[in-house]
Amino acid sequence: MRRVLSSAPAAEMIGAAVAEKAAVRALSARAVSTAAAVATEEGGGISMKTKVPGPVGLRLMEQHGPQGASGGAISLFCDYRASDGCYLVDADGNRMLDMFSQIASLPLGYNHPSLLAAQADPLLATYSTSRCAIGLMPPMELPELLDETFLKIAPAGLSRVQTMLCGSSANENVFKAAMFAYRAKQRAKAGRGPTDFTRDELESCMVNQSPGCANDLSILSFRGGFHGRTMAALTCTHSKPVHKLDAPAFDWPTADFPALQYPLEHHAAENAAEEARCVDGARAIFEARLAEGRPVVGFVLEPTLRREDGEFDAAFIVDEVQTGVMASGHMWAHQAAWGLPEAPDFVVFSKKALLGGYYFKEAFQPPQGRHVQRRSDTDPASHWPGPSLTAGYRIFNTWMGDMTKLLLFRAVLEAAEREGLQARAVSTGAALMRTLEAARERHPRAVRNLRGAGTIIAFDCETPEMRDELAAALRNNGVLVGTNGSQSIRFRPALIFGDEHVDEFEGVFAATLRQLAL
Amino acid sequence: MRRVLSSAPAAEMIGAAVAEKAAVRALSARAVSTAAAVATEEGGGISMKTKVPGPVGLRLMEQHGPQGASGGAISLFCDYRASDGCYLVDADGNRMLDMFSQIASLPLGYNHPSLLAAQADPLLATYSTSRCAIGLMPPMELPELLDETFLKIAPAGLSRVQTMLCGSSANENVFKAAMFAYRAKQRAKAGRGPTDFTRDELESCMVNQSPGCANDLSILSFRGGFHGRTMAALTCTHSKPVHKLDAPAFDWPTADFPALQYPLEHHAAENAAEEARCVDGARAIFEARLAEGRPVVGFVLEPTLRREDGEFDAAFIVDEVQTGVMASGHMWAHQAAWGLPEAPDFVVFSKKALLGGYYFKEAFQPPQGRHVQRRSDTDPASHWPGPSLTAGYRIFNTWMGDMTKLLLFRAVLEAAEREGLQARAVSTGAALMRTLEAARERHPRAVRNLRGAGTIIAFDCETPEMRDELAAALRNNGVLVGTNGSQSIRFRPALIFGDEHVDEFEGVFAATLRQLAL
Repeated sequence: MRRVLSSAPAAEMIGAAVAEKAAVRALSARAVSTAAAVATEEGGGISMKTKVPGPVGLRLMEQHGPQGASGGAISLFCDYRASDGCYLVDADGNRMLDMFSQIASLPLGYNHPSLLAAQADPLLATYSTSRCAIGLMPPMELPELLDETFLKIAPAGLSRVQTMLCGSSANENVFKAAMFAYRAKQRAKAGRGPTDFTRDELESCMVNQSPGCANDLSILSFRGGFHGRTMAALTCTHSKPVHKLDAPAFDWPTADFPALQYPLEHHAAENAAEEARCVDGARAIFEARLAEGRPVVGFVLEPTLRREDGEFDAAFIVDEVQTGVMASGHMWAHQAAWGLPEAPDFVVFSKKALLGGYYFKEAFQPPQGRHVQRRSDTDPASHWPGPSLTAGYRIFNTWMGDMTKLLLFRAVLEAAEREGLQARAVSTGAALMRTLEAARERHPRAVRNLRGAGTIIAFDCETPEMRDELAAALRNNGVLVGTNGSQSIRFRPALIFGDEHVDEFEGVFAATLRQLAL
Repeated sequence: MRRVLSSAPAAEMIGAAVAEKAAVRALSARAVSTAAAVATEEGGGISMKTKVPGPVGLRLMEQHGPQGASGGAISLFCDYRASDGCYLVDADGNRMLDMFSQIASLPLGYNHPSLLAAQADPLLATYSTSRCAIGLMPPMELPELLDETFLKIAPAGLSRVQTMLCGSSANENVFKAAMFAYRAKQRAKAGRGPTDFTRDELESCMVNQSPGCANDLSILSFRGGFHGRTMAALTCTHSKPVHKLDAPAFDWPTADFPALQYPLEHHAAENAAEEARCVDGARAIFEARLAEGRPVVGFVLEPTLRREDGEFDAAFIVDEVQTGVMASGHMWAHQAAWGLPEAPDFVVFSKKALLGGYYFKEAFQPPQGRHVQRRSDTDPASHWPGPSLTAGYRIFNTWMGDMTKLLLFRAVLEAAEREGLQARAVSTGAALMRTLEAARERHPRAVRNLRGAGTIIAFDCETPEMRDELAAALRNNGVLVGTNGSQSIRFRPALIFGDEHVDEFEGVFAATLRQLAL
């Protein structure tokens, strides 16, 4: 197999190609969107009473601060009971249009009637008050619930799913599964079964050393990517130094990510050269590590770079934690961004999926068999504590997810179908993009490098200071947006975000840009 | 500061000392327990219809298998709606006395009325359907809810708490916080502020290298311990090879854990020598790594070994994921097992706490300040992507817990107080211990090395095969127990487990031992 890394537009930059297609479809989709019943009867639009945070919020921050529990990043305290639809109400009663949706993790906004109805299901009460260890003693409804949720929307070519609790734990387990599969293949080449562990492996792993531990294997990741904060996930994260400083990392390689220029069609030659440079860089890493006898066994990215074919025996891991579940206008963003000849090996989800987890190809099912090797008791000198060795439980933890989230996610998918939310992400995204394009014409310093697909949209300000000023002013004027990177504004509205919300945003955005004289 | 590692009885072996005190108090406590109203009206006792798993369970396993989602460890499918109190009903309608409680993670058994009532709280419905990023935009009720839950039961000397989702993510973040604090102290010695990062640190961390990454620092852990499955937590886990094989580990050290003999009072001299050997071993590791310029900055253990005083500048991390929240007869097991002169630096919880998290001392609060250093844009050659650097967000992720679990945990604590469940853990544990001691007299091959505190009790069988046979026969006879290590049977009943349940277990246990002729 030849495997070539090639590139495509970046994270929220899935790109002009997709965005343009979306724009073409916009008018018809807009009609669909308008026709679809809006289930959420929102209690009015933006309504601001104080600066944000106001006096109540500031008092709560003071009260809460010494208790910890926050990591030092609290932005504002909120009144979630008073929030509805796309409007977040803070502790001071300020009602804001929320275009960031709890870091892109609210599929249906606040207090959606369909979710409240699902919440009242007695089965959910049982799941919540009798929480099970899903991997050990799952509820009898689990197979059916997976059919009705994650398996129903599985990316083409991926028929298996593993639930976890969050995106980080999903990525950590994907990295493990990729290494297990690689090691099994290595053993097969040596004529050994996938779990025919040697004595040396069994003993060395117990003190964190090779060959038992896979300290010679690695996962390649890309500059600018974010894959979580637990230590292996953090090793693959390269978005900001503050995430990584003073924390340990594995000696895993980092490749350059194409710094594309937008609009793509105005920079075709430069972008192609940049992509080729990055593909060559990644290939050089694969080759160098292989030559050193410490192969790269997987590579992880948000829907950005792609593999067309494989010259390296490495698992292709697509992290759709932020991009998955319809926000791109497609169920999974990689399906839109890439014309892949075959499915990736893993697709990771969380956030709008309500719990973490991943799809995987059958080849990455950890080898089964409960009692593969039982060490006799005749060698008491060995360090590892017991003779019992099971090959199950290799991807395992106590909870392995949360059944309540699975029930709620079924309600999300039903509401999305009933209300046409995937089409709405296309049409609303196109409307938001037009609004931002118009603003870019009038305010070229404040709005640059505009990119997106569906409602996953971002732009840069000229400077970090301008970005911070703009985000703060928007908040005081009743619009919440995300900030990321050095100078980007990020939009991650809920799937129920509609044209009426775009219109409201448009007014506030224009006024704020004028107010700041940007 | 001198700091000496000394040892005390092991995990579920918190020990004879505590267990004996418990036994002394048993009669009076039993009276308390009987007097306390039992809120759960259970629908009868054990009732077996088939072998376990029965035909329905086997069919579900067949149906579910190819879908993954299980890690290959499913033991049985259950009907959680039909389960109540301490009785788990499987898919075939077998009603079993559950003494393992979903890997020790059910505080009040199944469908407890107090939890069902809490589940019906409209605020819980809002938290569930409008899930917030707790670390960024917490609900206005958070400070009060923390006061009424985790801060109310904080171990002495620990006034700060950080919620997470699970035990693994809690441990991963504790390790980070320990490293952040150590690095801050190092910087202070060099006359730098805690977040005065150097250019070299800022750049090297982005490619996973020192000095930016803390690749020279480590956390010491002990043989036999279990602290989770994400990669840093897994590095500290040393219970079974199958957890660690083919997964990467940090080059962190592993110390011997005292292999104590029970009953403790019969083996005082041997145990003292064994403890001294392990303390010396751990000290040698601290000294060796310090001499190599790669210091151990923390050590993690279940309530087992203790630090009396500190000669090494290392954080003392107590993992109470399995032992915390009253099961030991104390709110936190380390309080009972150790007469510590001062609190540990971190106490980690999960399982019966319904969500993961940790207590920590103020000295381990990550340095605050949103914009500590801003790199100018004048050096485009640098690799790290942006000039914006915040020192907040160092302990952070999207969800940082789940507000619904906090509401439910408040109901757990209220029910525990109303029903006297902490006292019940003492009295029930003593009754269970007496039952097992009697069985040990009659079946010395099947029941040996009996140890425990509260209802956290375990014993060994003579061989792994005998253990497996006994656990399977108990299950078919209607009693679920846990198995761990090579040949242990582990009891982890819910806090509502009472004397009537011990009586029922006693009958089944005696019959099963006779049936197997053990």
